[in-house]
Amino acid sequence: MRQSRLLIPTLREIPSDAETASHQLMLRAGLIRQLAAGIYTYLPLGYRVLRKVEQIVREEMDRAGAQELLMPALQPVELWKESGRYTVYGPELIRLTDRHDREFALGPTHEEIVTSLVRDEVNSYRKLPMTLYQIQTKFRDERRPRFGLLRGREFLMKDAYSFDMDWSGLDRSYDSMYGAYHRIFERCGMQVKAVQADAGAIGGEGGTHEFMALAEIGEDTIASCPCCDYAANLEQAECKPEGEAVTSSGSATAAFSKPELVHTPDIRTIEQLSGYLSVPAERFIKTLIYKADGREVAVLVRGDHEVNETKLRHALGAEAVELAEGLTAASVTGAPVGFAGPIGLTVPVLADYVVAAMDSAVTGANQADYHLSGVRPGHDFVPSYVGDLRNVVQGAACPACSEGRLELHRGIEIGHVFKLGTKYSEKLGASYLDAEGREQPMIMGCYGIGISRILSAVVEQKHDAQGILWPVSMAPFQVHLIPVSLKDTHQMQLADELYEQLQQAGIEVLLDDRDERPGSKFNDADLIGCPYRIVVGKQAQQGIVEFKLRSGGEVRSLKKEDVLPELRRL
Amino acid sequence: MRQSRLLIPTLREIPSDAETASHQLMLRAGLIRQLAAGIYTYLPLGYRVLRKVEQIVREEMDRAGAQELLMPALQPVELWKESGRYTVYGPELIRLTDRHDREFALGPTHEEIVTSLVRDEVNSYRKLPMTLYQIQTKFRDERRPRFGLLRGREFLMKDAYSFDMDWSGLDRSYDSMYGAYHRIFERCGMQVKAVQADAGAIGGEGGTHEFMALAEIGEDTIASCPCCDYAANLEQAECKPEGEAVTSSGSATAAFSKPELVHTPDIRTIEQLSGYLSVPAERFIKTLIYKADGREVAVLVRGDHEVNETKLRHALGAEAVELAEGLTAASVTGAPVGFAGPIGLTVPVLADYVVAAMDSAVTGANQADYHLSGVRPGHDFVPSYVGDLRNVVQGAACPACSEGRLELHRGIEIGHVFKLGTKYSEKLGASYLDAEGREQPMIMGCYGIGISRILSAVVEQKHDAQGILWPVSMAPFQVHLIPVSLKDTHQMQLADELYEQLQQAGIEVLLDDRDERPGSKFNDADLIGCPYRIVVGKQAQQGIVEFKLRSGGEVRSLKKEDVLPELRRL
Repeated sequence: MRQSRLLIPTLREIPSDAETASHQLMLRAGLIRQLAAGIYTYLPLGYRVLRKVEQIVREEMDRAGAQELLMPALQPVELWKESGRYTVYGPELIRLTDRHDREFALGPTHEEIVTSLVRDEVNSYRKLPMTLYQIQTKFRDERRPRFGLLRGREFLMKDAYSFDMDWSGLDRSYDSMYGAYHRIFERCGMQVKAVQADAGAIGGEGGTHEFMALAEIGEDTIASCPCCDYAANLEQAECKPEGEAVTSSGSATAAFSKPELVHTPDIRTIEQLSGYLSVPAERFIKTLIYKADGREVAVLVRGDHEVNETKLRHALGAEAVELAEGLTAASVTGAPVGFAGPIGLTVPVLADYVVAAMDSAVTGANQADYHLSGVRPGHDFVPSYVGDLRNVVQGAACPACSEGRLELHRGIEIGHVFKLGTKYSEKLGASYLDAEGREQPMIMGCYGIGISRILSAVVEQKHDAQGILWPVSMAPFQVHLIPVSLKDTHQMQLADELYEQLQQAGIEVLLDDRDERPGSKFNDADLIGCPYRIVVGKQAQQGIVEFKLRSGGEVRSLKKEDVLPELRRL
Repeated sequence: MRQSRLLIPTLREIPSDAETASHQLMLRAGLIRQLAAGIYTYLPLGYRVLRKVEQIVREEMDRAGAQELLMPALQPVELWKESGRYTVYGPELIRLTDRHDREFALGPTHEEIVTSLVRDEVNSYRKLPMTLYQIQTKFRDERRPRFGLLRGREFLMKDAYSFDMDWSGLDRSYDSMYGAYHRIFERCGMQVKAVQADAGAIGGEGGTHEFMALAEIGEDTIASCPCCDYAANLEQAECKPEGEAVTSSGSATAAFSKPELVHTPDIRTIEQLSGYLSVPAERFIKTLIYKADGREVAVLVRGDHEVNETKLRHALGAEAVELAEGLTAASVTGAPVGFAGPIGLTVPVLADYVVAAMDSAVTGANQADYHLSGVRPGHDFVPSYVGDLRNVVQGAACPACSEGRLELHRGIEIGHVFKLGTKYSEKLGASYLDAEGREQPMIMGCYGIGISRILSAVVEQKHDAQGILWPVSMAPFQVHLIPVSLKDTHQMQLADELYEQLQQAGIEVLLDDRDERPGSKFNDADLIGCPYRIVVGKQAQQGIVEFKLRSGGEVRSLKKEDVLPELRRL
């Protein structure tokens, strides 16, 4: 393609409203433009990259035996009411009414639609298993759209749905998708970790994995073990029980005196307390009041630990948990926030393993401006539940192997595979007749990939100060061919010759035929980030060009007849 | 692809809610399923066809030098207010509000978005001309969605927009798209006519053509000349003036007597009147009261002719014309509907050429139950305007050549090209600096193709009683390979061998590996309509198969080694 004919509005300045490197570079390289918050136009270069990812995804889905179809974006809300998600999904679901006042949703995902389709069209075990997928624009009214394509309100997604006769069938379908996902991300040249995750709002009874692209700006935290293949989302990562719960009877601490009141005027945080008393944070117990499905509970973690709300939700079997507001907390403890402690509470008290194993600790006194020291868990208070309630920390023991110490990384979720089981098939009535003629619910899985998000994640992983470093598989063009001076007929002739030759050979070439200064051309080429650069300069008359990899390395001189073989070799 | 693994829910029965052949066949062949009125899922076979058309369109757009991008479906309504179409577009524009109560439209077309993009990113003549296009799902809340994909509310469209420095540039851009459209429809194997059309609501100052697929179920009427290349939409087709207007002075009819009142009790239509008076319809003048931008006018056409509202609108320079309601009409004429006539009216009277040239005619008397006979146009009443105000009729003289007589056909609009001029660039401020540094508005064109609609139009043109006859370019698979019996190992072995061989050769093969009766397989194959059918039957052991074209012709026996060469030849 001739660059003079393409809309590639590169920018010199860093756009002030773009916070992340990927967002800045995608704007600066002329890949995307914002139309409204979280809503973007893909300019010609950006669209080329998007289609390459789309094609990689399609090929691997087809290879895994999935069938492509296309379902509507406009979804009758009746199906969302059948599944029960109409109310649960909240304001992220964009709703509208048609001219006859019938309500529709703009599809953020398609479990309801695909399940009703399969319910109507498939009824025999002989048609199963079946995995259907689509590559489609999705809509989700994010509360805080940001980071360019990373968290948008209109985005391109691949969503797949498997239908099996039984759970072992689902395991096979799931593994097949899991394998396809690894191939996809590998082909995109990404550093990705598959981590155990929590099923969350989408529900489902089986396992689930998230695929995380490692990046500092990621909104998720991943815990992984360098010694084994354990990896989990922070929400899900297990903490190994450390020590034993101390009980009051027969304990070596039985002889200790009672807890003592300590005056701590206006000292409300662990940090303040630690400074004031000159005691490290791991000697404190944090007491937090939560509301779980409307009911108050107290949750205890060690002073330097954090409550994991997903684990708390599972421990309570609750639909939703949230930190209680100040007034509620005060009415439970009888003291202002900052002075809560476990002793004397009438609500259920849940303690993390580590808390239950502490010999003696400082806690709040449930009294303004006072804490208690010398509190002995199991003696001075007895938790109603002891278990894993906290986030793992850097260096924690790996729950899967005996050697490893967990490492924490930030990640961008770019894919997700779920074992849904019968959640949707039962609600929407998708059943089949088995070989004996008995009606059975289909066992479902669902599998998503954020195609537009991959663009951001790849740029986040692959860039330098000058611009993007596209992998060959995703590059808008493989080769950037740059004649230094349009006025030099030798250069233009050689550039045209190479352009024709490479295009004939099926290589995608961007020919910079613009009448710009060489520095400006090189800057744009760095920004755009095609993997191979060929500069036609002073030695054009001798048939010699300069060849350079965008990813680094020295500039090499090549004879014109060696260009194609060299590209083929790479 | 193995048919047993594909979701192709064929139907034996004709779906009761499908009126047209294409709609019935697309449902029966398992290509599409309705989710809601005018909203369809493309099943795997239907989606394959859709993607083939998409690819043909893309290749021809690229060949014509257009650049592909992708704009959002969610459009801020502010841009629609800037262009002035926010109020004009009416209920077809789907509107919604986001969680922050900001209003959006779901894009039915993208003039506003693309013009604002180019306004922001292009400002020099050196970047022009430029044609941008996208292939995207569009939304239009049709009042009467029907005929399957023909008139849907969510559909796939290619829309392109050209930006030029001047009108001659626009002519070149337009011609380039016009040529690409012809190539696209030719590659889809369609019978298509390009016709002159009216710009309608989209506006624009230049020419416009519609591309019509000829089909009885089409919602449009086309007038074309068999002797020259004249072709126009009925809205637009000119009527050649016939005869001369008769004026009162110096006319040969000056000696005639005055019009006479004729008692016509409760005789209101031309048909009734013609029977009652035993006078043919072409001896009557029909008088219709219209509201043009709120102002009443009377329009006269001959009794057997019909008013063309597009021509009327242009004659009046009006934004909108509509037939007045009964009460309004009665207040203008002083008589009930059915007895209107031109004599004595105080509103402007517009007469079609043919009316003005009539010697003497019967008209309404503006008095209940009475008509007038012997009315002489130009003498008994003088029209304030005489011109072309009616629809052409079958057999009318061609306005372009002297010999031809127009033929009328029905057509499905599948493409449309417009010269927009500066309508959007001026409203949205898309200007450029010319070589002298002067600011000029860009001259725009826009170009649409209904990609999903093409599927219906092709099936409408290419089917027989048994099913669809896909052209090779659009077929979901080129070859349908059918072993007659799954139990016969010779047949299955040969079928598998051919399947592998043809796929290796890049031919798309659907292998019917289902355990069904042969009759059922053949019926499905006819319905689905792959162009080439290979049946592996009794002579499998001898390496002989049966070869048949779906479009007709005899069954031929082929040796297995001749199958690939034969397919290559075709």
